[in-house]
This record gives sequence, structure tokens and C-alpha cells, in this order.
Amino acid sequence: MSDFKQLIKERRSANNFIKGVKIPKEDFIEIFELLKLAPSCFNIQHANYIVITDEAKKEALREAAFNQYKVHTASAAILVLGDKEAYKTADKIYSGMLNLKMISQFDYDQMLLDVNNLYEGRGQDFQRDEAIRNAALSAMMFMLIAKDKGWDTCPMIGFDPDRVKELLNIPENLEPVVLITMGKEDTSKRRLRGYRKPIGEFVKFEE
Amino acid sequence: MSDFKQLIKERRSANNFIKGVKIPKEDFIEIFELLKLAPSCFNIQHANYIVITDEAKKEALREAAFNQYKVHTASAAILVLGDKEAYKTADKIYSGMLNLKMISQFDYDQMLLDVNNLYEGRGQDFQRDEAIRNAALSAMMFMLIAKDKGWDTCPMIGFDPDRVKELLNIPENLEPVVLITMGKEDTSKRRLRGYRKPIGEFVKFEE
Repeated sequence: MSDFKQLIKERRSANNFIKGVKIPKEDFIEIFELLKLAPSCFNIQHANYIVITDEAKKEALREAAFNQYKVHTASAAILVLGDKEAYKTADKIYSGMLNLKMISQFDYDQMLLDVNNLYEGRGQDFQRDEAIRNAALSAMMFMLIAKDKGWDTCPMIGFDPDRVKELLNIPENLEPVVLITMGKEDTSKRRLRGYRKPIGEFVKFEE
Repeated sequence: MSDFKQLIKERRSANNFIKGVKIPKEDFIEIFELLKLAPSCFNIQHANYIVITDEAKKEALREAAFNQYKVHTASAAILVLGDKEAYKTADKIYSGMLNLKMISQFDYDQMLLDVNNLYEGRGQDFQRDEAIRNAALSAMMFMLIAKDKGWDTCPMIGFDPDRVKELLNIPENLEPVVLITMGKEDTSKRRLRGYRKPIGEFVKFEE
């Protein structure tokens, strides 16, 4: 599958977008249909998304993101959130599987027990870590699926999380994890790709 | 690129691996060469990897992972770590670009100032969040690249981080983020894919 290598190579964090481009709603639907398949701990699907295309809201978001110009020119800003309380809804995920006889009552009970032991046992810091971890796994897959459909993205952490929560009425259980700007990159303004460390500096083999 | 959709659909969290399969070292090298291109905040490349194929070390890791059988049968266990102090090495990343005249001295100085303001300004909790966030982005790309090369994976958080740190002599600045088991899935024991929430339950449109 050399296409996939090409996709990885062509995905760049876009710094400049062509203004005025509209992303069809069906593109988002297709992206999220595929994104569902992202992995998550115990399959409890911590990742939540808010897709902001409303111009006024996007401008307010830009202000909360230290006025970064790319939020203005991007076609959409996508806030990726992690649900710190996702483990509390594990019963909803597993009861569907129980009803479809995909799992037994014994497995169902055991699964809910395991989930609770892990999340309640390790406590609130772990629940927050999990929200960030699982939402970030999903966010990477989102950016690759978007690129495969011809859309450029840039993951951003440079925003005021409290302002963003207030602006978008985000409930306490949802942790903002990353803000993704999305649109068509203005490649005429593209910089060279940043320097990458050689493998020896970030990989160790215990063999 | 329908191949990519297929890749996403075929990637499953493998629960059972065929024992005794060896992953060629060059497969790892090719995976990491491509994985370098993963995005990270300010391109400071927080993600670090330890690839464990040594049988004794893998067995010790299995014990630290609550004795999970898949660590035993997997060809490799890959520990993904996030560097909480990655921002302190931003000068190394950017000085290469300065020397190659990819950026000006002004841009270089500004970049280092921005990186420091962000990481020192927001403090230790943020530095840890960033380690988890950026390593998780990288980990998702790792699993997709591995799958594209024919290797199955399973991301795991069910391990004792302190035991793992001790076992592998991990310095304080590196935060264990996810343990990935990798090998050839034994598909004869495959379960049905877990239930996924409909889009309406995890996506909100502000349009």
C-alpha cells in the first residue's frame, strides 16, 4: 500500500489556509463514520468533537486562541474533547453487545467490573489522563482521514481552555484536548518541513 | 484513496497473537522513518519509543501488565513514552534549521521564546499533559503504519507504570503513555468488533 506512505508524507501541519472554502457536511459525516473505528481503552470511546463552521463562533474561538490567523482563514475549527467520565457509560456500550448476544452476561458483568476497577481505582488524575490519551489517538486518525479526503489540518494547543469551555458551553466532564484547524492549505506560503530527529534519538531497542 | 479506508477498517485491536513470529528489524526502521513525520507541538517531538523483543524483558513486562497473555504471545511490546522536558531541547531542533538557513535568526529566537513561554508559563501539569497528548498522536500513527506493513497491534494502558519504569530504567522526564503489543493476529480467535456510538452521540456541529 504505497498510497498510505504517500498520505503520511503529504500530511503537513498547514499554517495557511485559502479563505472562503466550504467543507461539505457530507465530508464530515464520512470522516466521522470512519473515525468511529479508532481504538479506545475498553472501547469506551472517550473522544468527543465540536465542529465549528459558524463564522461568529469561529472568530470568538480565534480570540481565545491568541488571535491566531489560521483560525480565521480555516474553513472549520474542530475542538477535540476527552470525556473524563466516559467509563461511567460503559454499560451503554456493552449492553448493546449483550442484547445482540455478542457477549455473555458473565462477560458483560466482568467487563463493567474491570472498567470500574481501573477508572475508580486509579482516580481522577488517571481519568483525566485517559481523556487526553484516547482523544489524542482519535485526533490523529481524524487528521489522516481528513487528508485522505483532500482536507488539510493543523493540530493546535495554543488556546485558553477556560475561555474555550465558556464560549462553547462545555460541560465539566469534557476536557479540551486539541483544536484542529481544517481547510485547503495555501501551499504558496508553505514553509519547509521541520527538522526531524534521527531514529537513534527517539527509539531504543531491547532485543 | 480507497486503500486507506480499507486500512482503517482492517486495523483492529488484536487480542490474540500467533506465537513465535519474528518482526524483522528493518520493518521497525521503516516504520520509525515514516513515523518521524507525525505532528507535535512546535515540532519538538515529545514521543520516545522502547521496542522490547528480548524474551526475558518481555516476560517481565507481562508481569507488570497484570500478566496479560497477549504480551506473552506478541512478537514485540512497544512502550510509547512522552518527554515532559522535550521543550528544553527545542534549541537542538531549531538550530539545525537555522544553520540550513531554513529560518532566520529572528525566527529562531522568537520560536524558542514562544516555546519557553508556553511550557514554563503553563507549568508542570501542562508539560505532562503535552507528553501524553503528543505521544498518543504519534502512537496512533505508529499503529496505522504497522498495519500497513502487515503487523497487528493492540494499545494497552493496563500496566503498572512504576514497575515498568523500574524494569526498563526509564528516566524521570519520560512518562509511559501507552504499551503497544505487536505481531500477527490469530484471527481464528477474533471477536466481533465492539459497538460504536452513532455520530450524533459524539459530534456536535456549530454551523
